[in-house]
Amino acid sequence: MTQALRGTSIIAGQSVPGTNGTTKAIDPSTNSSLDPEYSKLDATQVKRATQAAADAFREYRATNPNERAAFLEAIARRIDGKREEIVGRAMAETGLPHARLNGEVGRTVGQLRLFADVVREGNYHGVRIDPAQPERSPAPRLDIRQRRVPLGPVVVFGASNFPLAFSVAGGDTAAALAAGCPVIVKAHNAHPGTGELVGQAIAEAVFESDMPSGVFSLLYGSGSEIGQQLAADPLVRAIGFTGSRRGGLSLAATAAAREVPIPVYAEMSSINPVIMFEGALDSESSGAPELAEQFIGSLTGSSGQLCTAPGLVFVPAGGRGDAFVAAVSAGLDGQTGQTMLTPGIAEAFAEGVSDLENEENVSTVGRGVPGEGENAPAPVVFSADLAELRSNPVLRNEVFGAASVIVRYSDVESLAEALDELEGQLTVTVHASEADNAAVTSLMPVLEDLAGRILFNGWPTGVEVGHAMVHGGPFPATSAPATTSVGSLAIERFLRPVAYQSVPVALQPEPVQDSNPWSVPRQIDGKITRG
Amino acid sequence: MTQALRGTSIIAGQSVPGTNGTTKAIDPSTNSSLDPEYSKLDATQVKRATQAAADAFREYRATNPNERAAFLEAIARRIDGKREEIVGRAMAETGLPHARLNGEVGRTVGQLRLFADVVREGNYHGVRIDPAQPERSPAPRLDIRQRRVPLGPVVVFGASNFPLAFSVAGGDTAAALAAGCPVIVKAHNAHPGTGELVGQAIAEAVFESDMPSGVFSLLYGSGSEIGQQLAADPLVRAIGFTGSRRGGLSLAATAAAREVPIPVYAEMSSINPVIMFEGALDSESSGAPELAEQFIGSLTGSSGQLCTAPGLVFVPAGGRGDAFVAAVSAGLDGQTGQTMLTPGIAEAFAEGVSDLENEENVSTVGRGVPGEGENAPAPVVFSADLAELRSNPVLRNEVFGAASVIVRYSDVESLAEALDELEGQLTVTVHASEADNAAVTSLMPVLEDLAGRILFNGWPTGVEVGHAMVHGGPFPATSAPATTSVGSLAIERFLRPVAYQSVPVALQPEPVQDSNPWSVPRQIDGKITRG
Repeated sequence: MTQALRGTSIIAGQSVPGTNGTTKAIDPSTNSSLDPEYSKLDATQVKRATQAAADAFREYRATNPNERAAFLEAIARRIDGKREEIVGRAMAETGLPHARLNGEVGRTVGQLRLFADVVREGNYHGVRIDPAQPERSPAPRLDIRQRRVPLGPVVVFGASNFPLAFSVAGGDTAAALAAGCPVIVKAHNAHPGTGELVGQAIAEAVFESDMPSGVFSLLYGSGSEIGQQLAADPLVRAIGFTGSRRGGLSLAATAAAREVPIPVYAEMSSINPVIMFEGALDSESSGAPELAEQFIGSLTGSSGQLCTAPGLVFVPAGGRGDAFVAAVSAGLDGQTGQTMLTPGIAEAFAEGVSDLENEENVSTVGRGVPGEGENAPAPVVFSADLAELRSNPVLRNEVFGAASVIVRYSDVESLAEALDELEGQLTVTVHASEADNAAVTSLMPVLEDLAGRILFNGWPTGVEVGHAMVHGGPFPATSAPATTSVGSLAIERFLRPVAYQSVPVALQPEPVQDSNPWSVPRQIDGKITRG
Repeated sequence: MTQALRGTSIIAGQSVPGTNGTTKAIDPSTNSSLDPEYSKLDATQVKRATQAAADAFREYRATNPNERAAFLEAIARRIDGKREEIVGRAMAETGLPHARLNGEVGRTVGQLRLFADVVREGNYHGVRIDPAQPERSPAPRLDIRQRRVPLGPVVVFGASNFPLAFSVAGGDTAAALAAGCPVIVKAHNAHPGTGELVGQAIAEAVFESDMPSGVFSLLYGSGSEIGQQLAADPLVRAIGFTGSRRGGLSLAATAAAREVPIPVYAEMSSINPVIMFEGALDSESSGAPELAEQFIGSLTGSSGQLCTAPGLVFVPAGGRGDAFVAAVSAGLDGQTGQTMLTPGIAEAFAEGVSDLENEENVSTVGRGVPGEGENAPAPVVFSADLAELRSNPVLRNEVFGAASVIVRYSDVESLAEALDELEGQLTVTVHASEADNAAVTSLMPVLEDLAGRILFNGWPTGVEVGHAMVHGGPFPATSAPATTSVGSLAIERFLRPVAYQSVPVALQPEPVQDSNPWSVPRQIDGKITRG
């Protein structure tokens, strides 16, 4: 390693040893602990980070598009520069394979560069101009201009299952920094070393780019204690969170009870229904056996520990549906479990699987074998009928890991009713051929009310980072269904609109000036103009 | 009157007498009650309205832009068609003058027509298209398209102080209907007849336009009981509210505690600081006397019962500031109180004024005389120094009505600190000349963090309804600072994004189809294109 892990927090550019005990990462494949020790911060130390962020806010938000975009690119470059070091440490801390983590580094730096483009393009300013109409009667219209301004310091809680793309320099961090908000990351205790390497990259980029040091901090400590303190801190203006429903709701409750409530963008829970139609199972190009193989691949990748893993698959009762189920059963035979992220996650998975096994009207379709080493349980698929799903909440719980339930349905009407009864989802997937179009057409409004992303003839795992992506959806997929945590639209989480009425040109912010010095797209009298 | 007031609720196109007691409007100028009696709904009857809205949702959201815009225009036309009837009843119920209410009808129908334009223009769909890149390596990019979909049934609670523009067919109703959401209005008990006339206009437009009847209901009953029931109803997907902080927070708490929380867009409380600089007071065109006269006009219009009334005016200590204060004092001498909206509001005003009078370090600058009839208290202006404002929360409370506090400041640094300590505001106003630019420039980020609208050399009352307006701001100005309750951006409150991945063209919604049949503006690969 070119730079030693220090085991300390980073607060406004300084390495800060904590005074509140220590913690170590655990290699989940062996249950052994990994050096170094990470020292945990006490409440006073945590407060230094939010104060530094608040102090940095007005200087940071005043950066121009090139400065801010270059800063994001500097972070990307520095992460890319220690790619192997990061991947190596992340493998040890998470049990995830090299290819997956290497891809995740690519996604992380791609995300940062996407937001650099967004900053330069400038559409995110949301500029609207209604020019004065001095001649209007009965009263003249005054000049009104609108843009979005950043909210202030943002706290990010990373996810265990994406130690890079949803962690220290993940989507929330990139979006908040792009919006002009300082970021405080609560480091995930399951991958502290990975987090520190990325945190060092950001701190170096802050220094290199001459940004105010408080624009970034990385804090080690107890998730619940520090989390509650940060959510309650009056200097914090928004929270990004990816993780458990319990964790997200706890932060949301604290944030709502503040004297000044703040938004919590929590991505929490989703079982990602997949709906198979006869036409797809009959298809020559990808019939039942091929779809079964793809399903198993999507379910078992990353040991099923993906927010978008297919946890519920609706399959026609009888006919080609039987062939699909038989192929899944056969396909699981050869499947070996992969190491899960933490012993705790593996334990929760075992409990969720056991709950399903104990249900009278749930049968086991197939099961693989445990992998080598610790915490590598066998993937498993269950099945039940539609009536059982509708009456039994156990089947609708998320089991985080490679477990899924196949639900056999007889008609599209009762399928639609069952879908309407599900909780909000990140994704819903349809496998259908043209022959199924009539049935699918009637289902589209149901799917739109159910999920943030609707996809056809593919699998929900693998989330493209672009402008059109929505990684969100109705509660409890996220606490904030009007937004996304992946893709360029995420920048809007950290902005709010301000109107400028009759403000002299010399005092107008650049994006709303008539001369449009930053060449941003705008709406003038409600009509779009290119920048 | 061409159509008698029935004193009943309207549920999905039907006149429904309530079974839960009755209420009558009160003429605040005489404290006498006005016919007819309004019968109040019980819980079972209220539930019929949300069920009807839920039943209507999928049919209504499927309307095309011309159908939906024509429906909004039909509502506008029918309200305009009974303008005098509406204004007459509203005068009796609110004590507001003819000109003000006639203007408010104009604003209400203008708002509906603006949203008809927004529906036809189509930018609100928020379409983003990232076309497939089959040749991309290492993995091909799939076709992803995004648009916004409506949330579902919306409940609107109107304001007492805008019986038209923020009530039955007000901004929230217009925005929600434009978004494709059915609307249930809880009628305000202070102007039930005005509400019924407007509700009849909407119901007639629903029928004329062949919309599903459940798309609109108007409910009479106890505000707190029905309000809590509606906020807790699982079929309700969002709430728009304009009113007191206590009322808004109570709805927000209920909405957050639901199994599936929903957004509450509550506009609540604002004292709308106005900042005078020496340059403005010195100005030849509008010096201290002119500004004092304008201030009194803005403060006393509609008896001060405007969300944006100037409740706090920062004036330089000494110098021309003294001339301004003297002119305010003299100007108030001739001012007669105007009838307030309800006896309860007049009582609360008297309490707020009394609280200020009892403060040791607060003095009275000037006071008018009570108006004729009941509930027409004298307008009054107090003054205090900046230190008192910063230490005494009584000075920062909203007193709803024609009362304001002039705060004398000595330097811009401590002014900026005092502004940073204020709660979030709908507006902040600056009176300054070019000579003040250096001081104002340093203040701009403070103002942007403080309020939803910054205006120069004017007065905050009078809210233009256009594309660039923001009527919102940090909490407690509104519970949802990322949105506005006035202007076309308000439509976004009632929408959320959905991504369509590899969805066959035959199943794509019109706004995301390559052929763009509705000619909506879109972002393709992050670049704006006109429709």
